[in-house]
Order: sequence, then structure tokens, then C-alpha cells
Amino acid sequence: MSQKIWQIYLSGEIHSDWRERIITGARERNLPVSFSSAVTDHDASDMVGVNILGQEEDPFWRDRKASGINSIRTSTSIRLADLVVVRFGPKYKQWNAAFDAGFAVASGKPIITLHDAEHDHALKEVDEAAKATCRHPEQVVEILSYLVS
Amino acid sequence: MSQKIWQIYLSGEIHSDWRERIITGARERNLPVSFSSAVTDHDASDMVGVNILGQEEDPFWRDRKASGINSIRTSTSIRLADLVVVRFGPKYKQWNAAFDAGFAVASGKPIITLHDAEHDHALKEVDEAAKATCRHPEQVVEILSYLVS
Amino acid sequence: MSQKIWQIYLSGEIHSDWRERIITGARERNLPVSFSSAVTDHDASDMVGVNILGQEEDPFWRDRKASGINSIRTSTSIRLADLVVVRFGPKYKQWNAAFDAGFAVASGKPIITLHDAEHDHALKEVDEAAKATCRHPEQVVEILSYLVS
Amino acid sequence: MSQKIWQIYLSGEIHSDWRERIITGARERNLPVSFSSAVTDHDASDMVGVNILGQEEDPFWRDRKASGINSIRTSTSIRLADLVVVRFGPKYKQWNAAFDAGFAVASGKPIITLHDAEHDHALKEVDEAAKATCRHPEQVVEILSYLVS
Amino acid sequence: MSQKIWQIYLSGEIHSDWRERIITGARERNLPVSFSSAVTDHDASDMVGVNILGQEEDPFWRDRKASGINSIRTSTSIRLADLVVVRFGPKYKQWNAAFDAGFAVASGKPIITLHDAEHDHALKEVDEAAKATCRHPEQVVEILSYLVS
Amino acid sequence: MSQKIWQIYLSGEIHSDWRERIITGARERNLPVSFSSAVTDHDASDMVGVNILGQEEDPFWRDRKASGINSIRTSTSIRLADLVVVRFGPKYKQWNAAFDAGFAVASGKPIITLHDAEHDHALKEVDEAAKATCRHPEQVVEILSYLVS
Amino acid sequence: MSQKIWQIYLSGEIHSDWRERIITGARERNLPVSFSSAVTDHDASDMVGVNILGQEEDPFWRDRKASGINSIRTSTSIRLADLVVVRFGPKYKQWNAAFDAGFAVASGKPIITLHDAEHDHALKEVDEAAKATCRHPEQVVEILSYLVS
Amino acid sequence: MSQKIWQIYLSGEIHSDWRERIITGARERNLPVSFSSAVTDHDASDMVGVNILGQEEDPFWRDRKASGINSIRTSTSIRLADLVVVRFGPKYKQWNAAFDAGFAVASGKPIITLHDAEHDHALKEVDEAAKATCRHPEQVVEILSYLVS
Repeated sequence: MSQKIWQIYLSGEIHSDWRERIITGARERNLPVSFSSAVTDHDASDMVGVNILGQEEDPFWRDRKASGINSIRTSTSIRLADLVVVRFGPKYKQWNAAFDAGFAVASGKPIITLHDAEHDHALKEVDEAAKATCRHPEQVVEILSYLVS
Repeated sequence: MSQKIWQIYLSGEIHSDWRERIITGARERNLPVSFSSAVTDHDASDMVGVNILGQEEDPFWRDRKASGINSIRTSTSIRLADLVVVRFGPKYKQWNAAFDAGFAVASGKPIITLHDAEHDHALKEVDEAAKATCRHPEQVVEILSYLVS
Repeated sequence: MSQKIWQIYLSGEIHSDWRERIITGARERNLPVSFSSAVTDHDASDMVGVNILGQEEDPFWRDRKASGINSIRTSTSIRLADLVVVRFGPKYKQWNAAFDAGFAVASGKPIITLHDAEHDHALKEVDEAAKATCRHPEQVVEILSYLVS
Repeated sequence: MSQKIWQIYLSGEIHSDWRERIITGARERNLPVSFSSAVTDHDASDMVGVNILGQEEDPFWRDRKASGINSIRTSTSIRLADLVVVRFGPKYKQWNAAFDAGFAVASGKPIITLHDAEHDHALKEVDEAAKATCRHPEQVVEILSYLVS
Repeated sequence: MSQKIWQIYLSGEIHSDWRERIITGARERNLPVSFSSAVTDHDASDMVGVNILGQEEDPFWRDRKASGINSIRTSTSIRLADLVVVRFGPKYKQWNAAFDAGFAVASGKPIITLHDAEHDHALKEVDEAAKATCRHPEQVVEILSYLVS
Repeated sequence: MSQKIWQIYLSGEIHSDWRERIITGARERNLPVSFSSAVTDHDASDMVGVNILGQEEDPFWRDRKASGINSIRTSTSIRLADLVVVRFGPKYKQWNAAFDAGFAVASGKPIITLHDAEHDHALKEVDEAAKATCRHPEQVVEILSYLVS
Repeated sequence: MSQKIWQIYLSGEIHSDWRERIITGARERNLPVSFSSAVTDHDASDMVGVNILGQEEDPFWRDRKASGINSIRTSTSIRLADLVVVRFGPKYKQWNAAFDAGFAVASGKPIITLHDAEHDHALKEVDEAAKATCRHPEQVVEILSYLVS
Repeated sequence: MSQKIWQIYLSGEIHSDWRERIITGARERNLPVSFSSAVTDHDASDMVGVNILGQEEDPFWRDRKASGINSIRTSTSIRLADLVVVRFGPKYKQWNAAFDAGFAVASGKPIITLHDAEHDHALKEVDEAAKATCRHPEQVVEILSYLVS
């Protein structure tokens, strides 16, 4: 059977260790998968625009400079991904995660959502577009393990 | 010049009158535009699945039945739209609006966002993908008026 | 709101009156929908190849001549459709219906399946790709009525 | 000439040894081909949803959880394949095989069908969309051998 | 059922009356079809480049100026067509007809070929990509009549 | 033959009367064509962003607000066009015209360039991607007349 | 600079040594290119269908069985190619070469034509779609050498 | 995390050392990036057509022969690129750079522009389509460094 390396894009929450738990879990099982994600250092991500391209007084354009650069990484990663995992945590609006989910689905990429049941109703449209809804990162690892078996 | 009717999809918040203000404003100016949107009657939208397809005990699958039907309308409307306006209101998660935005962008459709400045930072990725960020529905009407001039 | 005419392709079983019930139901409600389907006269469909292009002794090529012509109509109808309804009846293999379903999904068109519960397990992959699974044609009419509201 | 490894997706029947005969035949001829397929362990495939994501009482949703995960593997494999072989055995409805065939054709991937003559008439639409119809797995191996020569 | 007007592009031979026979046949049956084709006035087509854009001494570039303009019409017509009929007559190389056929197939448009049996072997690759091979224009009319029924 | 209305997008120079000469010429010949273009009122176009969305001190972001809105009109018009005419005048950089040309070509739309011979060498890459290079607007009208004949 | 291996598909005439001259020329210059082509053994190609899939009395279907298998190789090779070279020799209709050219162009792949001046007028549409027209295989090698420099 | 090699296409000005500064900067930081560009030897690029394909008297066609060959390299490089950097220098029209920018954007590839502030207004449409606007090549290197981190 094929030796394919699956490309997995991990989108969403940056304030918990869900990425590490998936990556570690996949490594422990020696799965042929490769992960990518946005830059998850919150300050580095927010300030990349002005750090490289110069200061802005207006926070709207300061954010724009950062989000432009970050979108290069995000859109390229989704384009190259075989599967996108989208995590919604308990806090914050996390609109970029939902945006990534819609972008991935319209790009023909399967998505898996990862969130607690309390957000089920608010995420019903995103979950409908998903191939699976997980509650724990370990379930994502199990799905990856099944997919590459 | 061309007599094109512009197709505008209005996505997002259903608890304020922003859609009506845009539609009324466009009608008052006699603009050659046609609007579509999701079903905005909250109960009708949430219950359409079980109303038509039969009851479900588990709210997760009750939502699924509704969101499946609603996604037919949403995806078809975006596919046919020339422009998608995405409104984020002051309340709720509104992840479906951000999902629509990502879906539209990956489908090659221009989007305009409509929200208050307080959400600028949380929406920086969505705004970056947008062609304009408006604060008031009347600004959307002015843009439409300019586009079809 | 938009005056769009929804294009609906009706695929599958030709031995019951499900198409008529959907078309009649939509007409009774005065829905802005337009229907298309394969030629449902079984003999006309099977013999169209040899009737127009000349006899074949080998039934394999006799079928080929018919299926080539029929696929022009099917693929064009799906390409132009906003929604594809796929009906699986109690008898026959109906592989062409499942083929249409896969073709529609990969073409980015939403599908609705229509079949009895006894086929649920055999159709689990097709139903997963569908936006709704109906048991009765009247449910399809109700969904259409909701979509165009 | 090119050293390309052909990616072959094997879709359909899981109750006979046709996959093994193709894979073994290709290996014996040392062909530069790589195979992928759905998980062919019937129970593992049917139960993957509830095994990973949790129990469901309603068999419809139990199947849905499995088919969602399985479709990640199927759609990704077809997207990456150069050629899809679709096997229809003597038993069962095998609608997922016909669905895969339609999905592959609409995705621009060539397909080969593999089935007995008794199913020729029922499969005439699928065979029309195929580049070859084989009766024995060894014929598939011969085609692969010719393609990579 | 749908009131669709089928768009038919007629490609190939310009030295016989096959186009007229198809158009007249369709009109006599009152078929809802609309035809397009390249400019079939041989001199007008060959000289359009230099007539509009100015003389060229080298016949290679004289032809280029014409074929550039003609390709606007051809590619646009194929892009808008539901069906492409490609006629190969008994004389000349007619490479543009075969080019149109390949262009149409890769654009996802069904094609019908129209030629005598003496060219079957030379056209085997084009016929393989076609949905039907006709010998007489009247057969094309019969197929159109069936498609729109 | 077909009654198609050709959609023509007129891109480029706004300081001469080339658009009017093409539109008038087409009207005089009663050609079935429809024209679209960017807003050609220079001040209205440059100031649309700040006029509608609010002032900006930095001219870079002032321009951004305008170019975002203008790109909705440009990209939509190119997407709907059958043919794009790109005019390069004797003055200014006109990079947006060359950008439109590249955008149109990658979108599969045929382009015609319109410029004096003095710019031939600088425009050789754009002309190579074009189906015709005209020197006078009247030549564009003649090509349109030929295309719709 | 990039270490890319260019994939070149060689389409057309099989009765002269033009492929060998290009392949040998590229090897002598040590160019990072990889070639693919249809099976060029005339008998093997013509008989592959019946050899593998069983005899046919009617030569039309005998050819079909072969051309179906050959099209898997051709379409896959064009899909993977960066550049398609299409050779038209002095004899035969060579409609498959022109078909390949049209297929490649509609697939977004650049083509180079290779033929004598005597065929210029007959090939004016194909040459218009080509990026270069060569008279000798060595010119193709020189272009490859330039492209990979 | 993923070991991806980013493919970067460097488009535009050939009269300064901006390419070298980006390539050297990336090498010094050991970034996993690979660069491609058009042939930047001005004479080799301008004369490649006539050097390989034979002389032309008319400079328009002399340029055409070169630009045809150069476009093979350009379009292939953009198709394979993850990111396109477009440089506008202080001199010349540089329409090919703007054409590349439009081609890349319509092909779904992110672009970065690189130019002085004096060209901001003239490049407002191109900058709007870009994910970042840099003033110095070193800023491009910093963005690359961030993207691959």
C-alpha cells in the first residue's frame, strides 16, 4: 500500500496544548503525518506586520499588516493540506478558525472540528461541513491513525 | 454600459435590522441589485430539520438536520453571488458568518465586512480578506451604488 | 429578495411516481423551481443508441451507444443544477443513481437522498455526502419550499 | 523516459481477493505503482465512528459517524490518484463503489471497472464513463503494466 | 420540466452543407437549441487578421493574425456550449476540428463526432472521447431531439 | 445562429476617448455587445474609499480603501466578460491595466490589446498573451463586428 | 535557483526519430527534464485493447478498446506535464496529436509545435495556441535548455 | 512540524540586485526556500526567439518569438510557486511585472510587492491585491523567515 505522508493543518485556539497533544500522539504512534499551523506565538503573530514593514498608528492598519503576512502562511498551508483540524476553545471569538474552516471546505479539503459540547449549537453549520467532531485531541490522533492504516 | 443585476448575499447577524436597511436603501436608490440570504427567522431555521425530516432526541443531530438543509441555501447563494456582505453584531459567536466569509473568499467571491470597531482585532483575518470594512449599513448601500454606476 | 428559479435534477428510480409527486407538489405550491431528469421511458432510454446510431449485436456495445447519449443529458443537467435529488427504490442495483450522486458531489452540487430506512446502511456513504435524507417525496417538496422562501 | 510512480485507488467489493491479486500481480512484475484503498476490514470500517467518537443509539447516526471518517480517506485517495479501479462483486448493492466512480470521473480521474458480464446492463452508465471494463484482476495488472511501460 | 435552450457548437468541415442540415432539421422539429460556429466563409476567416489589423508579408504571421481573432470566437463558443459537434469531412487535414475536440473535452463539454467509417481508425482517439459517433447530420438532429425531450 | 450578447470589459487608460469610440462604433453597427469598465471618473475613483469609509491620513491606506472597492467592480466584470480589451495610452505607468490583463488571461478570458507601436517592445509579454493587438479603437469595433457575425 | 525537473510530454508522429533526437539532445546537455509519451510501438498500441480485454469483430469497437486504455496514459501524462511538444509529420491525419494539443491548452499547459512550413496554413489554429513553432527537434532541445537555465 | 520547501517566484526589475539580496539573505539564514525567476540576462531574453527559431525583420514578431518562449517559463514558475514577489524599480514601464502579478492573483497565489513609496499611488491596485508591500529586499527575507518558522 501507499507510503503517503498526510499533510495536516491545525487551525484555531492558541491558548491550550491541543496541538502538542496531537503532534505528540502522532509521533508516539509513528504515524506518517506532517503538521503545519499558523504561527502560534501570539505576540509574534500580532506584531509581525509592524515589526517587518514599519509602524502604524491606527490599530486597524497595524492588524492589517500582520494579517496579510499571516494569510500567506495560512492559505498556502490549507492549499497543501490533506486534512484540516479546526479547534474552538472555550474563550474568545475565534473567527479566524471559522474562516479557515469555510476556506478549507470551499477548497475541497476535508475538515475535522474539535470543541466541547457547549459550543455545539453555535457551531452547527461548521460541524455540518466537517467529517467528524471530536471532543479531545486524542480522538483526532485516533482518526489519523485509522486514516493512514 | 451593461445592465447587469448584481447578486448580493447578506450573511450573518439576524438580531438587528441591517439587512432591511441595506435592502431599503438600495430600493430607494433604484439600484440594479438582487439580494439573497439565509432564512432569518431564527426558530424556522433551527427547527427546519426536525420539522421536515422528523424528530431527534440528541440536540447535536437535531442541529445537523437543520444545518444540512440550510447549507443548501447558503452554498448555492454564495456560488451565485457577485458580492457577499458579512455582518458581525455585538453578541453571540456568529461562527457561521465567519465560515461563510472563508467559503466565499475561497470560491473567488469578493466580500465586504460590516461591524463595529470594537471587533476589529478579533476580525483582523476576515477583514484582511475583505475588500472593504463598513461600520453602518448605509455605507454598504453607498458602495453598491458606486459599483453599479 | 432574489427571484431565482432553482434548477433541480431528479436522478434515480424510474419505476415509481416519485418524480411526479415532487413536480406536482412544487407546482401546487407555486414554487420557483425547474426540474430536469434523464429520459425516464425505460425502452426509449435503453434503445436510443441503436435506434439512432444503428444496430449492435453485442449487448455490451448496444448499451454503450445508449449510455453515451444519455450521459450528455445527465452530465449537462447536473452541471446546470442547483440541487440534485437522488432516489433509490426498493428494487434493482440503481448504480447509475449512486454514480450521479458522486458526480454531483465532486462537481460541488448539493444532493438530497430519498429512500427507505431499510437501505440506510447500504447507502451510508451516499447519505453522508447528502445534505438531507428524505423518506417521502413530500419531504423533498417541503425542503424546496423552505429553500426558496 | 519518466520514472513516475502511478497512484492507483482500488474501490469497491471487500469480500473477495481482487485487491490482493492486483497488488501481488503488480509486485511480481515490479511495476512502479502504489496502491491505496478504503479500510477493507468490514467491522473496523463500520464501527470506526462510534469506536473513536462515542456510541450512538440510532443506527443512522452510527453509520454517519463512520462514513464521515471513511470519506476523508476515500476523497483524499481519489484526489491523489492517477487511476481508480472500481470493482463490483456478485453480491450486495455496492452503492459506495458507484459513488466513488462518479466522484472520480467528475474529478477528472480515469476509471477502470472490474465486474462480470452479468452486471453489464446494470452498469452501463458506469462502464460508459470508464476507460476499460475488465473481467479479471489480472487484466487490470496487464493494463497497469502497459501504462507504465 | 425545464425550458432550457441547449447551446450547440458546430466545429469542423466548411465545404459541405452539414451545418445547414443540422440547423434546418432542428428548426423543422422546433427544438429548443441554439447554434454557434466559427465564421465559415473561408476567405473572410483566412483574411480577417490582415483585413482588420494590417498586411503581413510572411504567410505564417498573416495566418497568426487571423487565427488569433478566430480563436476568440471559438474558445468563447466552446466555453458557453452545452454540446460540441465535430465534423470531419473527406478532405483536408482539419486539425483545427481535432484541436477543438480536445479543447472541449478538457473543458468538460460533451462532444459528438460526425464522419464516415473510412476515418474511424484515424479518429479512434477522438471518437473514444466522444459520447456518440454519427455518420449523417440527421443522426445529430435525432440526438438533439432526444436530449431536449 | 445564436443570439448571444457578448460581454466586453474595457480596461486601461482613462484620459482619452477610446472607450466612447468603441461603444459608439458598436452602437452604430447595432452589435449585440454589452460593455463594462472601471469607474473612469478619476477623482470619484481615487476618493471612493475615503468618501464612503472615512478619512485616512496616510495616502497609502487612502489608496487602499479606494482600490479595495474598485477591485470588486473590476474582478466581477472580468469574471463575467467574454472578452477584455486593454488599452495602454502614451502616458503614465498604467500598471493596473497590465494587472487586469494578467488577471484576465489566468481566468481564461481572451484579451485584445490597444496601443501604439512605440510601446510594442515594453508590452511584448502582454501582447503575446493577447489574441490581437490593435492600434485604433475602430479596429476593436471591426473585430467585435466579426466575432458576432 | 530551483532544482525543478521539468516534465515534458511528447505527442504526435511515431514514424520518425524526433523523440529520440529530443531525448538524446537533452541527455547530452544534461538537462533536468523527464519525458513521457504515448506507447509508440504502433502494433502494441493498436492491439492493446483486444490483447488484454478480448477480441472484437467490429474494428470500430476494437479501436475503442485500445483508445480507452491509451487515453489513460495520455490524459495522465498531460495532466502531469509542464510542457507538451506536439509533432506533426508529413504523412497521415494525426488527429490525435491535434486533439492532444487542444486538450493540453484547455488544461492550462503550454505547448510547442514541431512541423515543416508546408503545414503552416493547415496548423494555423494550433500554432496560434502554441508558445513556439519549431522546424527541427534540435530547436526543441534548445528551448528546453533555455527554460531550465 | 512540516519540512516543506517554499517555492518563491521573483518577478520584475532586472536592473538592480534585489534578487541576489533576497537569495543571499535566505541562504544566510538557511531558509527552506527555493527560488525561480525569468531569465534575467536582458539580451538572452530578448533574443531567445530569433536565436533559436530564426530571424524576423519586423520587431513586433521578433519580440513575439521571444515572449512566447519566455512565457513558458513564467507561467510554469507561477503555477508551481507558493509565493510570488513582484519588484517594480524606478525606471521603465515594467508591464510584464504587473501582468505577472495579475496572473498570479487570478491563479490563487499570494503576492508580495517590492517598490519605493513614490510608486504607491500608481501601484495601488497591485498593492491592494498583495499580502504585503516591502520597501527593501531584506524585508522580503524577513517575511520568508517568518513564514517558514
